[in-house]
Amino acid sequence: MGIKNILRERAGKFFSSANARGAKGKGAKADFALFYNTDSTSDTDANFRYFSGTAVDGSVLLIRKNTTGVLITSGMNYEKANALSPYPVVKFARAKAYEEIRKLAGAGAKRCGIDFAAVSAYRYFSASKKLKARMLDISDAASAVRGAKDEEEIVKIKKAVKIGKEILEEMDPFAHKSELEVSKALKIATLEKGCDISFPPIVAFGENSRLPHHEPSAKKIASGIVLIDFGVKFEGYCSDLSRCYFKGEAKKEREAYAKMQEIYNEITGVLGKCKNGSQVARLADEAFKRHKQPQLIHCIGHGIGLEVHEYPHLGQKSTDVIGENTVMAIEPGAYFEKFGVRFENEVLIRGGRARTL
Amino acid sequence: MGIKNILRERAGKFFSSANARGAKGKGAKADFALFYNTDSTSDTDANFRYFSGTAVDGSVLLIRKNTTGVLITSGMNYEKANALSPYPVVKFARAKAYEEIRKLAGAGAKRCGIDFAAVSAYRYFSASKKLKARMLDISDAASAVRGAKDEEEIVKIKKAVKIGKEILEEMDPFAHKSELEVSKALKIATLEKGCDISFPPIVAFGENSRLPHHEPSAKKIASGIVLIDFGVKFEGYCSDLSRCYFKGEAKKEREAYAKMQEIYNEITGVLGKCKNGSQVARLADEAFKRHKQPQLIHCIGHGIGLEVHEYPHLGQKSTDVIGENTVMAIEPGAYFEKFGVRFENEVLIRGGRARTL
Repeated sequence: MGIKNILRERAGKFFSSANARGAKGKGAKADFALFYNTDSTSDTDANFRYFSGTAVDGSVLLIRKNTTGVLITSGMNYEKANALSPYPVVKFARAKAYEEIRKLAGAGAKRCGIDFAAVSAYRYFSASKKLKARMLDISDAASAVRGAKDEEEIVKIKKAVKIGKEILEEMDPFAHKSELEVSKALKIATLEKGCDISFPPIVAFGENSRLPHHEPSAKKIASGIVLIDFGVKFEGYCSDLSRCYFKGEAKKEREAYAKMQEIYNEITGVLGKCKNGSQVARLADEAFKRHKQPQLIHCIGHGIGLEVHEYPHLGQKSTDVIGENTVMAIEPGAYFEKFGVRFENEVLIRGGRARTL
Repeated sequence: MGIKNILRERAGKFFSSANARGAKGKGAKADFALFYNTDSTSDTDANFRYFSGTAVDGSVLLIRKNTTGVLITSGMNYEKANALSPYPVVKFARAKAYEEIRKLAGAGAKRCGIDFAAVSAYRYFSASKKLKARMLDISDAASAVRGAKDEEEIVKIKKAVKIGKEILEEMDPFAHKSELEVSKALKIATLEKGCDISFPPIVAFGENSRLPHHEPSAKKIASGIVLIDFGVKFEGYCSDLSRCYFKGEAKKEREAYAKMQEIYNEITGVLGKCKNGSQVARLADEAFKRHKQPQLIHCIGHGIGLEVHEYPHLGQKSTDVIGENTVMAIEPGAYFEKFGVRFENEVLIRGGRARTL
């Protein structure tokens, strides 16, 4: 399927947005929606990338209910945008951007959707004032559409997982002097494979592994446990993997890690039957209780794609939909007084079963 | 000066915020301010880092007008935050976070400052509802305080500039096959020197140099011009440098680049006399006209520090203050039909003069 058809399908799903969480159907109520990717120094906005098919900076994507999208960009970026964008590109003078957008949206367009979670309060007030439209929060609707991945996305996520695993398999943290050195080696290996990291690697030696979000330090690595939580981005799509490495006896640590792998297998064995996030959370809680493990101090996992953490949320109260082509990171972890362990992979839901990627 | 005193001084400046742009004195009107650094997968919020003296994720910084600041964090991050934060740390249960903040702010505190440019519309509405306080946009006030760097910051920026220059001096883009390969080599060299990149490097060979924000492609590098725009982050502080490299005759390209260096010297020779952003913009325009160069298609430069682009803005209408200890990137560039050139360094204003770092 060509990129233009893919984008048409995505926009179509967005405007019908059957499975919008909480804000059910808010996509459907919007006549048009704006996605911003204006800052050249920070990451591409995920919804902008998903609905525009490009990562060009200094630009705003306008999608409309019954017609094609338009990329709106500055004079400076026009040529680049034109070369990269599947949608037609329109140049704007900054001061007149919203006037242009009003015209492009069409006279009857009264309700403008923007992503309240991605757009700053400043931008919200400014758009709201200048567009003279009713502003709707389409954050949940857009997230939900991105929950079920299309074929093109799954191929990229698989590649990100494959490269991430290769790097972790080639990694011997005990060959490095410190947590920081391991983190640096992971980053360099990622670049050498033509990717970027999907988040700053967590490298935790010994007692530091107790802290799920430990920041790599100059701490020397000796015998014991090293926990690594790491992922790469391939063409915008993320992987997120956790592994524990051992040197010396480390008996309790090894046993605890084996237990997490066992729980991982149990959970993913029945995960395909879950219909929403809260069912997954409950499933995990039960498995941890059954195996007499300490209660989870973070979620059992999360959706993953253009963002490391995205729809579906796997919290106790989450009604986020799990279904065909949902991709999730599943990461059972246990944290004790002297050390912690975590095991994490990505799974894809297909035909009612969860397959580890 | 110890970190606690530095933070006290920064908070003090913020609340008096003598030189707040546009929103003059908005800092002073706030009884307390909140800075968020909640996402573990994206960059540390610059104001959070500046006012808290730490980069710990999953946290909110509360600063108060007449007493010390507090870092508010989740149970999962508590131990890490406690180890890293110069301010006292308070644990919160997510659902009760704003209740806690209300108490910590004090009964008389009615006006809450938040950074409208950094906080999402979603967070704004949620904070505004739960805090029952008047919400003030302190984005400009916080930016303006950060405009004049303190000694600790200047040391770090100098280091970031030094490392960036070393990497660019060691770089021979013609030894690489493509723009992408050069970009990868720059990123790896940055990691090897213990830094991160401050933005995705721009590497533009031949005609691609016409586009100021060109994205590195698989385009093969042969004879001619390569424009590189690149910088590193050292302990959170950025550098931003542009250089052109030549192979073969490339006569016009070399001449155009020499012209930009000449203009750079002229501008920075008198820059120390400018009092605000618009004066710098005018200075640049005059130099370009005098040298019969095409009109600038981007600003002549920008403030730089914890962010690549920060206060002061150097646009035609900018009233942003230039003064003692302002640090700016100055980047004259000219873009023709077949190629473009740009030369960029950082300058520090001291005693009425601009010194290239």
